Amino acid sequence: MSQHSYDVVIIGSGTAGQSAYNQVVKHTSNVLVVNAGPWDTTCARVGCMPSKLLIEAAKYAQASQHASEFGIHNQTRIDAKAVMQRVQHLRDYFTGHAQAVVDQWPAEHKRQGKAHFIDATTFKVGEDTISTKASIIATGSIPRVDPQWQQALKHKLLTSDTIFNLPALPKSIIVVGSGAIGIELAQALARLGVEVTLMGKGNDIGGLSNPDLRKLATALLTRELNYIDNSSIEQVYLEADQVVLHYHRSLPGQHNQHSGQVKAEYLLAAIGRESNINTLGLDNIDTKYQGIKGAIQHPLTMQLDDLPIFIAGDVSTTQALQHEAANAGRVAGINAAHYPEIQPFEPYTGLSIVFSQPQMATAGQSHQALTRANTPFACAEVSYRTQGRATIQDKNEGAIQLYGCPQSHKLLGAELLVHEAEHLAHLLAWSIQQGLTIEQLLAMPFYHPVLEEGLRTALVRLRAQLPELAP
Amino acid sequence: MSQHSYDVVIIGSGTAGQSAYNQVVKHTSNVLVVNAGPWDTTCARVGCMPSKLLIEAAKYAQASQHASEFGIHNQTRIDAKAVMQRVQHLRDYFTGHAQAVVDQWPAEHKRQGKAHFIDATTFKVGEDTISTKASIIATGSIPRVDPQWQQALKHKLLTSDTIFNLPALPKSIIVVGSGAIGIELAQALARLGVEVTLMGKGNDIGGLSNPDLRKLATALLTRELNYIDNSSIEQVYLEADQVVLHYHRSLPGQHNQHSGQVKAEYLLAAIGRESNINTLGLDNIDTKYQGIKGAIQHPLTMQLDDLPIFIAGDVSTTQALQHEAANAGRVAGINAAHYPEIQPFEPYTGLSIVFSQPQMATAGQSHQALTRANTPFACAEVSYRTQGRATIQDKNEGAIQLYGCPQSHKLLGAELLVHEAEHLAHLLAWSIQQGLTIEQLLAMPFYHPVLEEGLRTALVRLRAQLPELAP
Repeated sequence: MSQHSYDVVIIGSGTAGQSAYNQVVKHTSNVLVVNAGPWDTTCARVGCMPSKLLIEAAKYAQASQHASEFGIHNQTRIDAKAVMQRVQHLRDYFTGHAQAVVDQWPAEHKRQGKAHFIDATTFKVGEDTISTKASIIATGSIPRVDPQWQQALKHKLLTSDTIFNLPALPKSIIVVGSGAIGIELAQALARLGVEVTLMGKGNDIGGLSNPDLRKLATALLTRELNYIDNSSIEQVYLEADQVVLHYHRSLPGQHNQHSGQVKAEYLLAAIGRESNINTLGLDNIDTKYQGIKGAIQHPLTMQLDDLPIFIAGDVSTTQALQHEAANAGRVAGINAAHYPEIQPFEPYTGLSIVFSQPQMATAGQSHQALTRANTPFACAEVSYRTQGRATIQDKNEGAIQLYGCPQSHKLLGAELLVHEAEHLAHLLAWSIQQGLTIEQLLAMPFYHPVLEEGLRTALVRLRAQLPELAP
Repeated sequence: MSQHSYDVVIIGSGTAGQSAYNQVVKHTSNVLVVNAGPWDTTCARVGCMPSKLLIEAAKYAQASQHASEFGIHNQTRIDAKAVMQRVQHLRDYFTGHAQAVVDQWPAEHKRQGKAHFIDATTFKVGEDTISTKASIIATGSIPRVDPQWQQALKHKLLTSDTIFNLPALPKSIIVVGSGAIGIELAQALARLGVEVTLMGKGNDIGGLSNPDLRKLATALLTRELNYIDNSSIEQVYLEADQVVLHYHRSLPGQHNQHSGQVKAEYLLAAIGRESNINTLGLDNIDTKYQGIKGAIQHPLTMQLDDLPIFIAGDVSTTQALQHEAANAGRVAGINAAHYPEIQPFEPYTGLSIVFSQPQMATAGQSHQALTRANTPFACAEVSYRTQGRATIQDKNEGAIQLYGCPQSHKLLGAELLVHEAEHLAHLLAWSIQQGLTIEQLLAMPFYHPVLEEGLRTALVRLRAQLPELAP
């Protein structure tokens, strides 16, 4: 039992914590990082990296089949172990990189353990009492699980935390949840020869809010996936080492309910993530923090109310986005180090990408965000069915939707459901962040033949819908 | 023999001519397009489109082999006829689209034939004399051929005009010329199982000017290509229906010459393109136009000296770039229609892409352009050997080079030798066209894990090399 005093304590050493640390050490070396789990990142161990690795293998599996369209005929054998081995080998390589960063920090800056707030500037870590001028909460999030499923299915219940540890691809799997993670993994596994059933609660699909694109995405994905939307899960149990799932399905506006059951080797729960904020004892500071969830800090300063506490990364967001976590960590780090002098930072323009095929991406404001805020906007769609380069690639599917401001002619947002949307989304997000108008965007070079030319078509259509700019 | 008088005559109906026509008809219907060849575009018939189609097939062939790295094992059979059939089928589809545009023009706007200037406002087309207030030359270019080779090799000598008509992939080919077209086709054919020898004159490689990237590109391409650089061709002839080519090879700074010969089914001449400007009788207007080549018009107005003549598209450039041809046609169209009131138009920021694997791209000013103009610049390189997403994709090769202005901190240019460079190049070209500084670029969102993050690394390195911005 001892007493320590720091300028800044960072709780959590993932992406946000590491990013905060990099800022804090520019101002003080009297810093401590308290971390309860492994000293790497969600991104490298169980997030972006292993999922993209699996998706990449799936792309090759799909390309091997699809090559016949180009006159290239393959007899394909998928090695279910080798696929997972590459995923794990490179996941460990990336995790090692993340750990190597932390390994370079001085030992006195690191403390393994769980922090528990006593008041706004004091914690317990084990038996020790730690006081600090300011602290940063960057404890991340974990996949949500239903305790009853856990009990019923035991090791047959997977989450994104465990699926990448499988020694081989499963024969069959039920993926529950049709958000970004559910869609990405369900499609990748199906392309790798796994028998996949995807269960959706409503008709949510990946990261799209535009109703037309959601319909199109459902149509595209159900070509290769057994997708049961509008379903509610009644019961799950094990039978002869197989997962059995009973569900009801009721379509909106219809009275009839349909019941059914599916069986598979595993069940992957992809039903969202839960913040790790509730185990920190924040309610000792103020009872109003009891049972808090999601973003409660100031979005531009990361400060929690007027306390010397800053919150950054997945712990406070519903979407686990690495680039946002890194940026929030940076802001929290700067402000914690300068506390009580804090400043707001310009946020990034929204950018989110689902790595399905075709990809789904949102840049700037989504259809839903604009509609909810009653923002006036014009909307233009371009189908990629006949887009030149996409036709060359035999990837001529999907569509894009652009949203523009009728007054300023600025581009407000975009939703994309096309191959290589990740690149188009960067182009659009950067343009939106700069406040470019449709006219300014149309003065930019578009090479030929490229997928970007579809954006130009959409911009031309959008301009045609806008009233003349006031001179 | 008859006399006609027009407001604008457009000579050539390709990309630049069509683009000019679209502008001219906004102002006058007294317009004539005179065209000597087919009423489609170089791009669709023998340029961008068929080459990208062949390259796409090559990607699938390469992916089929490469899939084993991901645990996906293919026994691959390449159907040499089917590969070419898809290329031809879709080429005809794109050509049909280009023709369909022209089919919509009124018959009285079109005239098949060859135009010959008598003076600055009068031509002959066949027996007819045509006078016009203004004219636009958009007659394009054709692949350069050596008449001796033509005579010696007959139908065994191919150019980009003829290679896409082959009924099947050849067994073997000698590609002469290591510029964009030579590299693209040599690599694609090699990946499709054709035995390829690539002959280079100096050590030019594709579209890169940066010495480090050129070295790297040579190293990457010679892994899969028999590339004989610094060669001069002594003799070509046919022997038992095979092309035989004798060459000398002398490395710069070395006295020893090496001689050799290669044999193949075909020889593809990819030694540049020649403007079609010299057959128009421009020397009847002024003898100084005798034997002219390349860009002689004003680069911002497209006007030829102070004449009512505008020049647009491949006819006046060494690089055949569709998006530049379309833009030049637009400018020429507007200015010809308004003649004598003409105005300069802002040019696009330079953007060129070679669709090799990895791709080569230049955005803004190249290393060579900056060096030749004695522009002060700082330079930062990032290798993609350990880039995250590229590692996931097993495409972690190549590098990028960014050039920045030490005074203004603006990004001046970039050269890229990485996979998917086409997308990164758009991001950079748009940023350069807007005059963004390194600091402004670093405030943009970079998703994770994406290839764009390599740009951020390069921007950080570039910033570290620049003196502080004057406050």
